[in-house]
Amino acid sequence: MSALAELVTTIAQRARTASYTLAVAPSVKKDVALAKLADLIDASHGEILLANQRDLASPEANAMNSAARDRMRLDEKRLQHLSTSVREVVALRDPVGEVLEEETRPNGIKIRKVRVPIGVIGIIYESRPNVTVDCAVLCLKSGNASILRGGKECFHTNTVLAGLISRALAESGLPGDAVQLIPTTDRAALTTLLKLDELIHCIIPRGGESLIRYVAENSTIPVIKHYKGVCFTYVDEAADLTMAESIVVTAKTSKPSACNAEEQLLVHRSVADEFLPVVGRALRAKNVELRCDAASAAILAAADISTVPATADDFRTEFLDYILAVRVVDSLDTAIATINRDSSNHSDAIVTRDEPSARRFLAEVDSATVYWNASTRFTDGFEFGYGAEIGISTDRLHARGPMGLRELCSYKFLIEGNGQVR
Amino acid sequence: MSALAELVTTIAQRARTASYTLAVAPSVKKDVALAKLADLIDASHGEILLANQRDLASPEANAMNSAARDRMRLDEKRLQHLSTSVREVVALRDPVGEVLEEETRPNGIKIRKVRVPIGVIGIIYESRPNVTVDCAVLCLKSGNASILRGGKECFHTNTVLAGLISRALAESGLPGDAVQLIPTTDRAALTTLLKLDELIHCIIPRGGESLIRYVAENSTIPVIKHYKGVCFTYVDEAADLTMAESIVVTAKTSKPSACNAEEQLLVHRSVADEFLPVVGRALRAKNVELRCDAASAAILAAADISTVPATADDFRTEFLDYILAVRVVDSLDTAIATINRDSSNHSDAIVTRDEPSARRFLAEVDSATVYWNASTRFTDGFEFGYGAEIGISTDRLHARGPMGLRELCSYKFLIEGNGQVR
Repeated sequence: MSALAELVTTIAQRARTASYTLAVAPSVKKDVALAKLADLIDASHGEILLANQRDLASPEANAMNSAARDRMRLDEKRLQHLSTSVREVVALRDPVGEVLEEETRPNGIKIRKVRVPIGVIGIIYESRPNVTVDCAVLCLKSGNASILRGGKECFHTNTVLAGLISRALAESGLPGDAVQLIPTTDRAALTTLLKLDELIHCIIPRGGESLIRYVAENSTIPVIKHYKGVCFTYVDEAADLTMAESIVVTAKTSKPSACNAEEQLLVHRSVADEFLPVVGRALRAKNVELRCDAASAAILAAADISTVPATADDFRTEFLDYILAVRVVDSLDTAIATINRDSSNHSDAIVTRDEPSARRFLAEVDSATVYWNASTRFTDGFEFGYGAEIGISTDRLHARGPMGLRELCSYKFLIEGNGQVR
Repeated sequence: MSALAELVTTIAQRARTASYTLAVAPSVKKDVALAKLADLIDASHGEILLANQRDLASPEANAMNSAARDRMRLDEKRLQHLSTSVREVVALRDPVGEVLEEETRPNGIKIRKVRVPIGVIGIIYESRPNVTVDCAVLCLKSGNASILRGGKECFHTNTVLAGLISRALAESGLPGDAVQLIPTTDRAALTTLLKLDELIHCIIPRGGESLIRYVAENSTIPVIKHYKGVCFTYVDEAADLTMAESIVVTAKTSKPSACNAEEQLLVHRSVADEFLPVVGRALRAKNVELRCDAASAAILAAADISTVPATADDFRTEFLDYILAVRVVDSLDTAIATINRDSSNHSDAIVTRDEPSARRFLAEVDSATVYWNASTRFTDGFEFGYGAEIGISTDRLHARGPMGLRELCSYKFLIEGNGQVR
């Protein structure tokens, strides 16, 4: 085994050992550690920002575009927000130990299904250094040991933040190995980590599509993927068009970089002539580029609204920008089939006054979150009342849609008898 | 793409298309198909047994040991049992559509979390031809399309059974592609299948450790593993020794080939002198070989009970035979640490009259099912009241322990608003 593989394996073994202690740690002990961490962040702005400036001055960071540089930048305000979010997690209910089901079988054995931590969770992420704290905190609160592997460009910032987490753990009597940062960004360390399926129970990649794909293809550990959101709004023939305009425009423009932002618009042919010029004008007024199929382009051109011809790829693209792909469809059936074929099964919406059409759409669109007369932008752990989220799963196993503390848990069966045999 | 890869991809595409129809198929339609299948099995004993004899006469089958040949053999009684088990699934409640949670948020949007099928499930299995029917039936009842890939040695039997399933589907108006058998046992077909993560949502391997490992290492699709059961019984210093004897002996001998059978015995030092000779004699009377550590071997030798020295491997082995590994431990702490290190986290039991010790054991042993004063043999979908099981998951994500119809489902969120935007 190489020295690097040995290092990573040792980290995972330590995490596994810590996970046993953490799994039965009382809520109050975990909350004390989290509160200490929030205080340490507040008291360490200077040290954190210095490390962050060092990262920002690196050749890697200098080669990045301004949006990417912005993602890795911390400032006073962002650090205040970070400690506030840690304190918010302290206030959440600990999901561990919750009894999910309870039954006494005819033979007298009593079966309880209780929520327990998953065990050891690996978080693989890229630029945002706040992920170091956010993910460690959610794993800790839910009783999971975590192994963090951040991006090269944020290495110094992540190292300082991980140091604060270690101090918070040590000062509250929890095992220091409960949260560990991989102290290298060598790709070989990641590859080793992803094969340690006897020590690590779950991998959550947080980042772009290529990172997620690399992790999914190289991991023998179960991965929960938070893929892209190619989200659709379908404006039905029976839509309230004023409501439709409001939903379509805000879902595109209120935060285009969000995975729950609308990327695709389908409009029923019978309302296209009336609706498209109105919504097109409103979108263009907000500088949204309209990438159109032939039918929608013709209607918009007649209303003197500028468009761009869409390519086939545009109809399956997550733009994360002021761009919307637009198509006219002939029927509800076509809308459902189009969404099931082209969306990323994240969040899709219908606007209609017709309840049977809405019910069909809700039942037949095979996405994590399906909306009737509301914006796709509500797919979010906070909007769902979870109090926090580690991401939005586009998988179907274990967790689908927003993942909060409960979704960071597994369960086990506790069975009590008085000598039953079989 | 090779012709084989094209064939497998086409099968998966057809399964995905069928899955949309199946996901919203009414329970009664699925139940009609299942009842027809049971009738077809009853009416086709001749055809099925002929195919099975052909499989049994193959060079592969002739090279197998008698236990393996027995697993692949069908007879009148086993076929009767097969159709009965299909009818039992008809009688179970359809889990699809169940509302798991329901809430109206402060902004007025109504969020419902409902149970839905996973989508397309791949079942990879080995010798037992009844798996073809058992797994197809559970997937169908839970609204999932399935792709079956059975073992080479049972190819003809599986083909006849899959033909009956197709007829049952066609005669009840469900898509024939809802259940498909891969019509080749070429390993390359499996490798292709395991990479079709855009069409298949879950892989369940049913078979030996090497098959499961191959699938887990080669799949980019999430896998639910049903690994081995290295199950422990720990006899505590405060155990009722009569109860302990009954549990230890039956958990080992009532069905040694079961994954929930006991393989490992730990005895607290303070009761070892009294307990080991009694239980040792009872186990030897049932021809159980005792593979012992030095301490237990000495006590048993003094009582004139024959033992075999255990190797280090024996203490982590699933024997599936009349063999039990035996160790003496000094404390509850050691028992828990030993189990967490050496067991397969499947099913482990403590026998004790001391409630605090039992509570610690239940909380700290990190296994899917943990028992207090009952046999590990109860880890079973039928014993849990699920009515059927597709296996016992040793994973921690999605499903842990016995998997019934509910565990073959995912969920989605249906959200209704009246124009809410964000």
